[in-house]
Amino acid sequence: MISKVVCPGFRAAGVASGIKAGGELDLGLIVSDVPCTAAGVFTRNQVKAAPVLVDMDRVASGEAQAIIVNSGCANCFTGEAGMADALKMAALAAASLRIPEEQVLVSSTGVIGKRLAMDRIAAALPALASALRPDGIGEVARAFMTTDTVPKALSRQGELDSVPFTLAGIVKGAGMIRPDMATMLCYIMTDVEASPAFLKRALKAAVARSFNRASVDGDTSTNDTVLLLANGVSGARISTQEQERVFQRVLDELCLGLTQAMIRDGEGVTKLVNLVVRGALSDEDAICLADTMGHSPLVKTALFGEDANWGRIVAALGRAGVPIEPELMDIFFGEVPLIQAGQWCGAEAEERATEVMRRPEFSITVDLHMGQGAGFLITCDFSVDYVKINADYRS
Amino acid sequence: MISKVVCPGFRAAGVASGIKAGGELDLGLIVSDVPCTAAGVFTRNQVKAAPVLVDMDRVASGEAQAIIVNSGCANCFTGEAGMADALKMAALAAASLRIPEEQVLVSSTGVIGKRLAMDRIAAALPALASALRPDGIGEVARAFMTTDTVPKALSRQGELDSVPFTLAGIVKGAGMIRPDMATMLCYIMTDVEASPAFLKRALKAAVARSFNRASVDGDTSTNDTVLLLANGVSGARISTQEQERVFQRVLDELCLGLTQAMIRDGEGVTKLVNLVVRGALSDEDAICLADTMGHSPLVKTALFGEDANWGRIVAALGRAGVPIEPELMDIFFGEVPLIQAGQWCGAEAEERATEVMRRPEFSITVDLHMGQGAGFLITCDFSVDYVKINADYRS
Repeated sequence: MISKVVCPGFRAAGVASGIKAGGELDLGLIVSDVPCTAAGVFTRNQVKAAPVLVDMDRVASGEAQAIIVNSGCANCFTGEAGMADALKMAALAAASLRIPEEQVLVSSTGVIGKRLAMDRIAAALPALASALRPDGIGEVARAFMTTDTVPKALSRQGELDSVPFTLAGIVKGAGMIRPDMATMLCYIMTDVEASPAFLKRALKAAVARSFNRASVDGDTSTNDTVLLLANGVSGARISTQEQERVFQRVLDELCLGLTQAMIRDGEGVTKLVNLVVRGALSDEDAICLADTMGHSPLVKTALFGEDANWGRIVAALGRAGVPIEPELMDIFFGEVPLIQAGQWCGAEAEERATEVMRRPEFSITVDLHMGQGAGFLITCDFSVDYVKINADYRS
Repeated sequence: MISKVVCPGFRAAGVASGIKAGGELDLGLIVSDVPCTAAGVFTRNQVKAAPVLVDMDRVASGEAQAIIVNSGCANCFTGEAGMADALKMAALAAASLRIPEEQVLVSSTGVIGKRLAMDRIAAALPALASALRPDGIGEVARAFMTTDTVPKALSRQGELDSVPFTLAGIVKGAGMIRPDMATMLCYIMTDVEASPAFLKRALKAAVARSFNRASVDGDTSTNDTVLLLANGVSGARISTQEQERVFQRVLDELCLGLTQAMIRDGEGVTKLVNLVVRGALSDEDAICLADTMGHSPLVKTALFGEDANWGRIVAALGRAGVPIEPELMDIFFGEVPLIQAGQWCGAEAEERATEVMRRPEFSITVDLHMGQGAGFLITCDFSVDYVKINADYRS
């Protein structure tokens, strides 16, 4: 499946450079045959890793041709030396690809505060560059895993005025799966031709509706990066508003698919849950209520326990800091109403709701009946394994 | 220890009324020999339990003489019927004490959405009233436990112009220890004489520096209540600013002691940790940073794992939404500096920090070196048992 993900005009590969002790793939490279227009969305954490700062600067030009990424070390909180390492890593990749170094974007993911093993990266690059191939994208999806359990790659096809185009993406890392193992990274490749301004706008909109509406543990990483490269080789061009809409729809679908794949593979996750709020006074209110539910340890442990514990949902909504009217509220687990107009629907409804919770994926919907505001959060349960994974790392 | 907690002029008792199936104490009563001035601080959750609404109304008069409390049922999200139950519970207590019903405050703690077993409360009240005695305060501390593992009571003595006075307090419930088992409740008794206005101000100030700076899981309950009753029987009177300061100091100490006892007995807690932030641009910034650290699942699981994982602290500070300058920052574990001026202090420092983390109580201090703002949060680790306790409740 993963090995089938290709995007015309892109080649990729991964190698085991030795940054990770266990001999796993830990260095990946993606390159387009021709220069691309590029867009990026980056972490809002004030503590930003060196490669994030490099990419923010380079993406501003709207152009790039390659991405190099390592796992096992986040190159974050490493000061000026870490910044020099990130620039060097890009320069080494550029030299082996014979392209200008400003055309190379760079990512790192792994332990915060640790320096990169630059010698291993330098030694591995010739083999990596010679391994580049069209079906190597899945290998990069594996090389940038930290404690992800499966590589995550997807592709989607679309058509612009009868010219077919491809969008392919890879993603890693649902939250901070291990101590210091921060970092959500996502790379999206496409063969359309589009302006940097449109790509930036389209990526920002897609991320707002997908990755930014997902949470495993509420801890924003220092390295989060989403990059979009468009090489134009399909001949499909985006210039009209209708073309923009077509592309946006396919991009949204890809980002949502990658987000779901990321959450499903989150730390200790046994369930993917879509928390939907509607009937709020505003979209902002709805998002705030969804976020408060989705970050409540009590709601999340109840999801793990398959306990249709609506009291915890009500308590979370009540502390969210936005106006609610408990006596108007409906709460559904999947299709089953558990609270209607502020009244409990009874023991039988609760049993049916418990059935819904046994599914690996389901939604919980809160309708406030106060206005038109709506929002959602894609989240997961909070399991014993989450705590074990995150407590046992260095012991 | 607990049985020694007395406050002159107050009597108390607990009984097993049968609200809880297992025959544990579940109904408690505290009464003063004379009417008291009273103050209260209540949950800011928009979903408020019926007894909270009753108490907010009654405390506004500045007078009360008794408190009746049950565990096993929160009487929350129970609509008008629940409100009638709360009023009835107070009226039943008033009748057996032969005092006006408006003089009785009422609390409930336990499952949200369940109706009170009023018949059991009515049946148990005569025995409860006849069991009232000066050293019965510790019995109430046991009767209002939900999944608390130990009763928590403390007393402190002070002197006002050479007249000794007593402050005694009991507290239950660190966070939502079991599904729906919300509710922090705290009752404080004193034999000073003071105005309702001063008591209200003093209680609010003490709570701001103790209970409101503590967190187990960030989930604010629907029933949180702190009540302070002053019966004046010591003859110690508070009228001057100096007398106010003396009383405030003793009240602050009592509240902080009760807060620490509550956190130590929090769900699955193995460590009490005081997160201190100083050198921030403002106190608000410092509190926001302490709160973000103290609610990060990754920081809290690292505390559980005794992992001096400063990368997670840095990542939490960076996402808190207030300005920080990473290169100025110091981070201490106990007395051990781990980061100074943004630089890691090395492997030996990290080993010493790990030693600090083996203690049952310690502090983590962040000095931002940006200004004079300071704040703290008393919190705990996040353990495998927390998830088990909260997931397994109804299974």
